[in-house]
Amino acid sequence: MKHNFGAGPCILPQEVFKQASQGVLNFNDTGLSILEISHRAPEFIAVMDEAISLVKELLNVPTGYSVLFLQGGASLQFAMVAMNLLEEGQTAAYLETGMWAKKALAEAKIFGNVNVVASSKDANFNYIPKNYSIPKDSAYFHCTSNNTIFGTQLHNFPASPVPVACDMSSDIFSRSINVADFGLIYAGAQKNIGPAGATLVIVKDEILGKVTRQIPSMLNYKTQIEGESMYNTPPVFSVFVSLLNLRWLKSKGGIAVIEQENEAKAKALYTEIDRNPLFKGTTTVEDRSNMSVCFVMENPDHEKAFLKLAEDKGCVGIKGHRSVGGFRASLYNALPITSVHVLIEAMQEFQEKN
Amino acid sequence: MKHNFGAGPCILPQEVFKQASQGVLNFNDTGLSILEISHRAPEFIAVMDEAISLVKELLNVPTGYSVLFLQGGASLQFAMVAMNLLEEGQTAAYLETGMWAKKALAEAKIFGNVNVVASSKDANFNYIPKNYSIPKDSAYFHCTSNNTIFGTQLHNFPASPVPVACDMSSDIFSRSINVADFGLIYAGAQKNIGPAGATLVIVKDEILGKVTRQIPSMLNYKTQIEGESMYNTPPVFSVFVSLLNLRWLKSKGGIAVIEQENEAKAKALYTEIDRNPLFKGTTTVEDRSNMSVCFVMENPDHEKAFLKLAEDKGCVGIKGHRSVGGFRASLYNALPITSVHVLIEAMQEFQEKN
Repeated sequence: MKHNFGAGPCILPQEVFKQASQGVLNFNDTGLSILEISHRAPEFIAVMDEAISLVKELLNVPTGYSVLFLQGGASLQFAMVAMNLLEEGQTAAYLETGMWAKKALAEAKIFGNVNVVASSKDANFNYIPKNYSIPKDSAYFHCTSNNTIFGTQLHNFPASPVPVACDMSSDIFSRSINVADFGLIYAGAQKNIGPAGATLVIVKDEILGKVTRQIPSMLNYKTQIEGESMYNTPPVFSVFVSLLNLRWLKSKGGIAVIEQENEAKAKALYTEIDRNPLFKGTTTVEDRSNMSVCFVMENPDHEKAFLKLAEDKGCVGIKGHRSVGGFRASLYNALPITSVHVLIEAMQEFQEKN
Repeated sequence: MKHNFGAGPCILPQEVFKQASQGVLNFNDTGLSILEISHRAPEFIAVMDEAISLVKELLNVPTGYSVLFLQGGASLQFAMVAMNLLEEGQTAAYLETGMWAKKALAEAKIFGNVNVVASSKDANFNYIPKNYSIPKDSAYFHCTSNNTIFGTQLHNFPASPVPVACDMSSDIFSRSINVADFGLIYAGAQKNIGPAGATLVIVKDEILGKVTRQIPSMLNYKTQIEGESMYNTPPVFSVFVSLLNLRWLKSKGGIAVIEQENEAKAKALYTEIDRNPLFKGTTTVEDRSNMSVCFVMENPDHEKAFLKLAEDKGCVGIKGHRSVGGFRASLYNALPITSVHVLIEAMQEFQEKN
């Protein structure tokens, strides 16, 4: 039995894998594979419609927002956000909390000016800056809700005088959010949504159409909204599996239930990190992520042996990113708490032996 | 038993569906689903490497070319080609042979000038223009090798004094091509490559890096080449299934073998269209596509009844595009000739009854 703590693409529910596998052989009793069905077939249009409608239901998306399934991942959104929202000569405000935030603002610079309103670069991004101000004349404010590499998370979003664009790739659907607080939310699917290859965008319609540059059709949110995420052939299988996963989340009781489970998983692991003298967390306590738990060992020489012990117990994907070192346990929605207990047991066993 | 003549996403080999379905449950005996594996895992890097290397082998790609698996489909390539190859103020030459060619040139206009060197718009795109000339000062010449909607195909590519960029979405891997004749080839995966969600690009390295505009990282071929198609998380599953399909093609004997099969399938169907007085082809005979066979009925009132008869025999996806009407039978690589025979039988049976 494998316990998949991988940072993404990541674990999805076992029943989703079973249904997805079946859909590859025979989709909805059509006698055809989901891989060979036309995206214009009523059966697939129903998949897209239900996926979009479940996103709206689970996140309580207010009217006036469009939900899109696109391609290209969050990395393409880094450019699309600025291309669609940042007029040449205007300035966008960015919060720099890690590598993904840095990449996002680098792409925005191609289209306009970028004002980094706050950064935690001074401490290798081990905290979330607070008490910064967002200039009223910014085109938008951009932030990254969860920093997978550094293990920090925005537990509160700042009040903003301008639309907030947020990269929620690694914690969307893991906790309740108030969509009305955002102008645009985007997320690569490959954490809590579905498999790699789809990108979710939730955008407030009224913020669009204000820049004067010509935008290629595929990169224009308005084209994608008009095309109902089918301006061209969508990533059919990724959307199908996202639907299966969103159905699973709904059947569990939705965001309220999964948020409690996620908090319990994170609490259990952080408690052990704080209790066990061999381990320590890498971020300020108040900014700890419930999705991406980063920790190192007091004695770095122990890390190789601990990794081996954890792997022997079936824990995979716990090696930390090279920017931080040590370990990273990603506790995405589909990871059962029993897997967290296995990792904790490994930590305790290692302590006993050393 | 279904006979899938759909225009795309389309039929893939049954054994590919079986292997893909198994990979969703347990990929390469890792104990993990292909959907939950990291794209940085050695097991997936091996998938990407083998897929790229099979593209090179099957198409005989010369040195000096890079092979990429991207996202966004051919529609995003319409913009990327011009963004990467067309300097502002320069002119690109386009051959207008159908709806996809029109869309491609519309996107190019955002980045520079477009010179439509020839068009078959005058006859609802039912032929391929010939005897046009490509100005020597064009940035590149763009053409669409197969026109799915109108049923025409470039059986020969023009000699060009400038790099040729070709949309081969619907006939790549169906026939032999000389890659050295092209500067850039692109294709949405969802015909003869694999499932929707991946896009294949084959580009001659030396034509890149010549425009002065700043290009977003994800849309810059050079970034994608440097990142070896993993600048960000690739569409893991679509690449995996593309690999399975390319392996299938190789095991059959490669392009030479499939090209003969494709010619035999097309010949059988066109022979019946020409023989059967109830049906007629919609394109000039010399430009008929071997992939997309378009035909109508002499008496349009018969079309509904014929569609019903064909569907009763298991033929799906044969309804023609609204721009042409009638029928379209897509004869992609994985469609067995036995399916073509079933369609022919339906045509003969319909003739007998009427």
